Amino acid sequence: MRNIFILNGPNLNLLGEREPDIYGHTTLDDIRSWCMADAAELGLTIDFRQSNFEGEIIESIHSARHEAAGIIINPAGFSFSSIAILDALKTFAGPKIELHISNIHQREAIYHKSLVSTTATAVMAGFGAYGYRLALRAIAEMTT
Amino acid sequence: MRNIFILNGPNLNLLGEREPDIYGHTTLDDIRSWCMADAAELGLTIDFRQSNFEGEIIESIHSARHEAAGIIINPAGFSFSSIAILDALKTFAGPKIELHISNIHQREAIYHKSLVSTTATAVMAGFGAYGYRLALRAIAEMTT
Amino acid sequence: MRNIFILNGPNLNLLGEREPDIYGHTTLDDIRSWCMADAAELGLTIDFRQSNFEGEIIESIHSARHEAAGIIINPAGFSFSSIAILDALKTFAGPKIELHISNIHQREAIYHKSLVSTTATAVMAGFGAYGYRLALRAIAEMTT
Amino acid sequence: MRNIFILNGPNLNLLGEREPDIYGHTTLDDIRSWCMADAAELGLTIDFRQSNFEGEIIESIHSARHEAAGIIINPAGFSFSSIAILDALKTFAGPKIELHISNIHQREAIYHKSLVSTTATAVMAGFGAYGYRLALRAIAEMTT
Amino acid sequence: MRNIFILNGPNLNLLGEREPDIYGHTTLDDIRSWCMADAAELGLTIDFRQSNFEGEIIESIHSARHEAAGIIINPAGFSFSSIAILDALKTFAGPKIELHISNIHQREAIYHKSLVSTTATAVMAGFGAYGYRLALRAIAEMTT
Amino acid sequence: MRNIFILNGPNLNLLGEREPDIYGHTTLDDIRSWCMADAAELGLTIDFRQSNFEGEIIESIHSARHEAAGIIINPAGFSFSSIAILDALKTFAGPKIELHISNIHQREAIYHKSLVSTTATAVMAGFGAYGYRLALRAIAEMTT
Amino acid sequence: MRNIFILNGPNLNLLGEREPDIYGHTTLDDIRSWCMADAAELGLTIDFRQSNFEGEIIESIHSARHEAAGIIINPAGFSFSSIAILDALKTFAGPKIELHISNIHQREAIYHKSLVSTTATAVMAGFGAYGYRLALRAIAEMTT
Amino acid sequence: MRNIFILNGPNLNLLGEREPDIYGHTTLDDIRSWCMADAAELGLTIDFRQSNFEGEIIESIHSARHEAAGIIINPAGFSFSSIAILDALKTFAGPKIELHISNIHQREAIYHKSLVSTTATAVMAGFGAYGYRLALRAIAEMTT
Amino acid sequence: MRNIFILNGPNLNLLGEREPDIYGHTTLDDIRSWCMADAAELGLTIDFRQSNFEGEIIESIHSARHEAAGIIINPAGFSFSSIAILDALKTFAGPKIELHISNIHQREAIYHKSLVSTTATAVMAGFGAYGYRLALRAIAEMTT
Amino acid sequence: MRNIFILNGPNLNLLGEREPDIYGHTTLDDIRSWCMADAAELGLTIDFRQSNFEGEIIESIHSARHEAAGIIINPAGFSFSSIAILDALKTFAGPKIELHISNIHQREAIYHKSLVSTTATAVMAGFGAYGYRLALRAIAEMTT
Amino acid sequence: MRNIFILNGPNLNLLGEREPDIYGHTTLDDIRSWCMADAAELGLTIDFRQSNFEGEIIESIHSARHEAAGIIINPAGFSFSSIAILDALKTFAGPKIELHISNIHQREAIYHKSLVSTTATAVMAGFGAYGYRLALRAIAEMTT
Amino acid sequence: MRNIFILNGPNLNLLGEREPDIYGHTTLDDIRSWCMADAAELGLTIDFRQSNFEGEIIESIHSARHEAAGIIINPAGFSFSSIAILDALKTFAGPKIELHISNIHQREAIYHKSLVSTTATAVMAGFGAYGYRLALRAIAEMTT
Repeated sequence: MRNIFILNGPNLNLLGEREPDIYGHTTLDDIRSWCMADAAELGLTIDFRQSNFEGEIIESIHSARHEAAGIIINPAGFSFSSIAILDALKTFAGPKIELHISNIHQREAIYHKSLVSTTATAVMAGFGAYGYRLALRAIAEMTT
Repeated sequence: MRNIFILNGPNLNLLGEREPDIYGHTTLDDIRSWCMADAAELGLTIDFRQSNFEGEIIESIHSARHEAAGIIINPAGFSFSSIAILDALKTFAGPKIELHISNIHQREAIYHKSLVSTTATAVMAGFGAYGYRLALRAIAEMTT
Repeated sequence: MRNIFILNGPNLNLLGEREPDIYGHTTLDDIRSWCMADAAELGLTIDFRQSNFEGEIIESIHSARHEAAGIIINPAGFSFSSIAILDALKTFAGPKIELHISNIHQREAIYHKSLVSTTATAVMAGFGAYGYRLALRAIAEMTT
Repeated sequence: MRNIFILNGPNLNLLGEREPDIYGHTTLDDIRSWCMADAAELGLTIDFRQSNFEGEIIESIHSARHEAAGIIINPAGFSFSSIAILDALKTFAGPKIELHISNIHQREAIYHKSLVSTTATAVMAGFGAYGYRLALRAIAEMTT
Repeated sequence: MRNIFILNGPNLNLLGEREPDIYGHTTLDDIRSWCMADAAELGLTIDFRQSNFEGEIIESIHSARHEAAGIIINPAGFSFSSIAILDALKTFAGPKIELHISNIHQREAIYHKSLVSTTATAVMAGFGAYGYRLALRAIAEMTT
Repeated sequence: MRNIFILNGPNLNLLGEREPDIYGHTTLDDIRSWCMADAAELGLTIDFRQSNFEGEIIESIHSARHEAAGIIINPAGFSFSSIAILDALKTFAGPKIELHISNIHQREAIYHKSLVSTTATAVMAGFGAYGYRLALRAIAEMTT
Repeated sequence: MRNIFILNGPNLNLLGEREPDIYGHTTLDDIRSWCMADAAELGLTIDFRQSNFEGEIIESIHSARHEAAGIIINPAGFSFSSIAILDALKTFAGPKIELHISNIHQREAIYHKSLVSTTATAVMAGFGAYGYRLALRAIAEMTT
Repeated sequence: MRNIFILNGPNLNLLGEREPDIYGHTTLDDIRSWCMADAAELGLTIDFRQSNFEGEIIESIHSARHEAAGIIINPAGFSFSSIAILDALKTFAGPKIELHISNIHQREAIYHKSLVSTTATAVMAGFGAYGYRLALRAIAEMTT
Repeated sequence: MRNIFILNGPNLNLLGEREPDIYGHTTLDDIRSWCMADAAELGLTIDFRQSNFEGEIIESIHSARHEAAGIIINPAGFSFSSIAILDALKTFAGPKIELHISNIHQREAIYHKSLVSTTATAVMAGFGAYGYRLALRAIAEMTT
Repeated sequence: MRNIFILNGPNLNLLGEREPDIYGHTTLDDIRSWCMADAAELGLTIDFRQSNFEGEIIESIHSARHEAAGIIINPAGFSFSSIAILDALKTFAGPKIELHISNIHQREAIYHKSLVSTTATAVMAGFGAYGYRLALRAIAEMTT
Repeated sequence: MRNIFILNGPNLNLLGEREPDIYGHTTLDDIRSWCMADAAELGLTIDFRQSNFEGEIIESIHSARHEAAGIIINPAGFSFSSIAILDALKTFAGPKIELHISNIHQREAIYHKSLVSTTATAVMAGFGAYGYRLALRAIAEMTT
Repeated sequence: MRNIFILNGPNLNLLGEREPDIYGHTTLDDIRSWCMADAAELGLTIDFRQSNFEGEIIESIHSARHEAAGIIINPAGFSFSSIAILDALKTFAGPKIELHISNIHQREAIYHKSLVSTTATAVMAGFGAYGYRLALRAIAEMTT
């Protein structure tokens, strides 16, 4: 059974309470539940993580090299400045989907240019919490 | 029954023969067929168009204002320079999804900064022809 | 009797319904009527056109070379990227007034730098639909 | 009776003798006379000033807050660098028209980007001395 | 017998009357005639087209994929902004020569950086109308 | 007894009426009164000035060289463009505090980069009118 | 009783020994003691922390959402690159003061543009260790 | 007898006391005296002025149009930002020499690009107070 | 006996398996062994560390202030964005060598400009794993 | 009989062995022979030179002022940085053709912007060694 | 007796014939003669050289280190790109005057930023051939 | 026996006397002697050259193509502007080490970006004269 890592970057633990006009009212736990349900249907297992530490995300990606068939990552604020996460992702050979809840291209300029996009297989932004479900469906397709 | 416009920009009529290492071997007709099938399942109708003329795409968007519940647009080469298409899309009140077959962030710099993204509800890039199916599913969700 | 071309670029056919907080509720037909009335008073005839196709605007300018004493042009979204329209206008020897309904300098950066301004005799922005009437009066003065 | 301030920036006292190929032979006194005549016809009074001191122009704008229904300003060389005049104009609630005698977009790059345009209601450039008369007519319309 | 497409962009229909100090007095018809004569001598046939519509030029390039051994293109004003034409040319596998009548590097900055040059096999600028004849000779060499 | 110059730049005479959502409702006279009271308590005298003329501010700084132990300056619009004020401040050997009522880093880009900051001993922004009282307390500390 | 978080970023544990010509000889413990004393006088309690880990600072800010009435933060080296800390601070509704011991605008260019300033209520730089006491006084005022 | 205007910009009244390591110990009065003596020898009269007000310098240049055969100007801090002074100088037909006491190209970047140099006949920088004497000799040569 | 810290940044734990065409097949353990052997020969002891956490590297540098005569650091992805590591290194008085396994100047632009180089005593890039041995030899020379 | 200088810049002596995938296998001697033959046919004589010294190329251009009717120059690496060669070419009144063997617009960015193009009559790039023959034919045309 | 090196860069051997509208009709030999005469009067000897080779100019500067009390250099086209000449001049401890015949700030942008100015004691531009005489007088003053 | 070229660029003949605070007191002859001794030990021969002429360095590199197994080059001032040397080095197939005596990243901005680094196998900077010995050791390793 294929395993998928779903990695969430800094401040996403506040999802649902932080800037709800941008990110909506769904919490990260809601998303985890949806993903669990969808994964079961798609014949996948998932490993769902959140961290505010760049180092932990890097090490999760290292783990994924041996434990996952694909990665879905919402790098949040790290998207735009972490070359170390970019380098870690480059070492992962399977499909990797970058996901942003809001449409980053409509926010301030510092949120426009994701470094992660230069190594991600595919990128989506602006689909809200529903994006996780789309990404899961896509990665199921990509890993068959 | 909700109607969705799926608009395709310049050179997409060559899909399947043009630069297959970037865009794959699927043709636009294949995509149209998949979308037809999926739409039926999702309770949607679709209006699928392609044009190499900026003016025609603008006028399709104008039509969509009265005839469509949502727009999926792959503006191709117009994404990066057409303020006129951007302006047209701003006049459309419903959800609009911007789609790129390849991950534009991994191509040359001129393909990085889509003007359309500044008005699109959501953006996806790099999911290949399968992206159309994801977008259709997403817009079904957005227009319920 | 002097003839004046009044050329309107993409999306201006939607004037009055599109982004009314920026452009107001007057339609392009209203403007055409006002211009007709004013032209009669000023001893001018006018040729009032709108197109969403860059090529059509270029060819209208070519026609103006033999059929018009002056041009009033609202190039809309083409202002900022069409070197082809700029080149066409350079071939017109008479006075040419560039007009924008809104004050483009208060919009997003992509609307700040009109290429057309580098060949226009004069430029006005922010006078709303009334700007057409001012422009007509000005071109009457310029072509006497 | 509505009063309009017409403010003229540095070096405009030389109008008619300075760089006549760019600015023409009309003097500022000629313009004042025309404006007087037009104002009478339009049911306006005008307060016509020129200063080479940024501070005086700022204080004229401050006066206008209580004494004028609208401002027409030709900020000349101050257009491009005076944030203090920009700040002063922001405090004026009525319509304010920025006017340049020549088409600044055809001059050297330092004359292209007016700071004042970011707060002006409307902007005109390149209509020569006749621009003052157009501006007066426009502000009459705006203040009715 | 090898067929060559010679494609001419916007405003080139005015050649000979437009800005003669930059482009000379030769008309596009003169050039067509010369090319016809030279082609005959070189054992080539030619398909000589001009359009002010980006979409038409794109579709001519699409046709060339099946009907031409080489392309000579003078994209004029489209050179500097049309990613769609660039994308179309990328789909053409044979030799493609970009030609500018004037030396674009001596004109204003907006004319310096042709997008088309990034896919053209070879580029020439500043040879006047005679450039077409050189290009034809070169493409004869390239397609043997 | 140590004397402190408190210098206020252009448009600050309008404080309390101008853009109250940015600057609040306190007037410059209110601030002067508070400073007077605080100064007495801190064992300082103050010389509180406002001018809309760059030249007057420069000459106040020149006076401060002999008459003041420290300078608190709110250069307002001059902060961002006056090299002459910067040069004047460089000639003042004592502590100099730059103060902005609003947090300039949250305003438009032209308000972000104060030239004065490159010579000021310390800088504060965003504390509202209360900032003057903090600055006075700080300069009391710095001049003991 | 209102509680205030005082957060200190990387390398500030070395304060007093590191680059004393820029930062002075006061240690972070000295500052903590002063703040404790001042807080008591102002009717505040304080939570004084230092970390070299971006993740820990983010999580401290998360805690502050429920445990603090205001935040004083010296983000040190993180000021200029951590979008994750910026995002965390945006979730805090109360007043937040950004503090730098030295005047960052007089250091190398990489220290000029703090990301944190775009969300901080107020900013101060260059007041040395005494700045903490000013900030505490200011936040007492802001939280009454 | 030819008259020469020698105009000095802001802060030059402090010459000799301000930043002596950059500008030396000579005062502006010393320079005036030297120039007087040299002028007599060269058969010139001089009009030597200093002002901290941009407006006064502009008006001195206006006077020079009728009263002087040449201008020597040390615009100091105004060199780098005053388009109004640049515009005034453009109206002066005779030779105009721009002079800087220090070598501005070795100072901070904001002192590198003088606007005045784009209209000055000749420029000198770094000759110290002695530069005034060289400039006087040069303008004597230029006005013969 | 002199002690040397050899610090390795993020993802270097994957050395030997990650992007072997850029970094080769040697592992970090191989390098540690070589360094141990060389150090013994050079009369040095070494403290060899790797971390994916910026905070841990900062704290290692803090330790080095008391425990090491010199630092060899391969900051990997942190080189290009961590001002906090730069600040930490500035507090270390002894020699510090920055080392990159690949020649960073031949990679993508984001890898070109190391912040660490602005404080490092010396820099080397492109010597592969052998670079560690060169660096050790160099630091032996520098610390004698 | 008209004489033409054909000047070749640095490293072109290696033509045929250096980077053959970019420049082909033809040597400079081959090109010289072809040019000799073609020149005879066109009624021209040629002076064919190569130098790795900028000074020698400058002095060849100086000689050409008296000895040549036209110049064909392949400035190679000097194209992009030598203002001295640009200045020398400006002194040559006859036609001058700049030639690059490869299409420089498809190489790295440092090869995109030739200084020489700003003074050359015409420019060609990407025609391989055959370009010399085209250039010779063109200059024959230009010098008749 | 003090010796002065007067060094002239590329193309200056053509002075008097090259671009006379910019540089005038005086030849370099004329200038040498004037300098000889003036030097005798000022109690100086001069060593007057011209070279089109950067290397020769560098070596002349090296010689000047032992043989000259001062350097006057007109680096011509090398001013703007030769870091090697800049480095050579940095090794010369005496006064060095940079001289340009024309006012470089009024030419194209590539002529605006002289590298040499960052090490020259003083700079002059736009005084024509007469500038050499001013420079000689200045260096006499500087070397007494 | 493998032969190594050690090439030294402009001004390095002054090593030991020029700017000793940056480059130290060792002369180039000292370095040559050390290299001779080390080479003998490493089983290498060396060819040690210095030139102030870009052309000579280019031709030395050409010679190296047939006479050397590796190149160590200190291009000095040519590093930052000579595309011709970069092009020459690209033709050399063996290992090439770029060496700078000082840490160029700590000098002025014009010394930061070496063109040579984009083709060098490896780069080192800041190791002083000792760097030559390290480079020799490295190239011995690389050429075995």
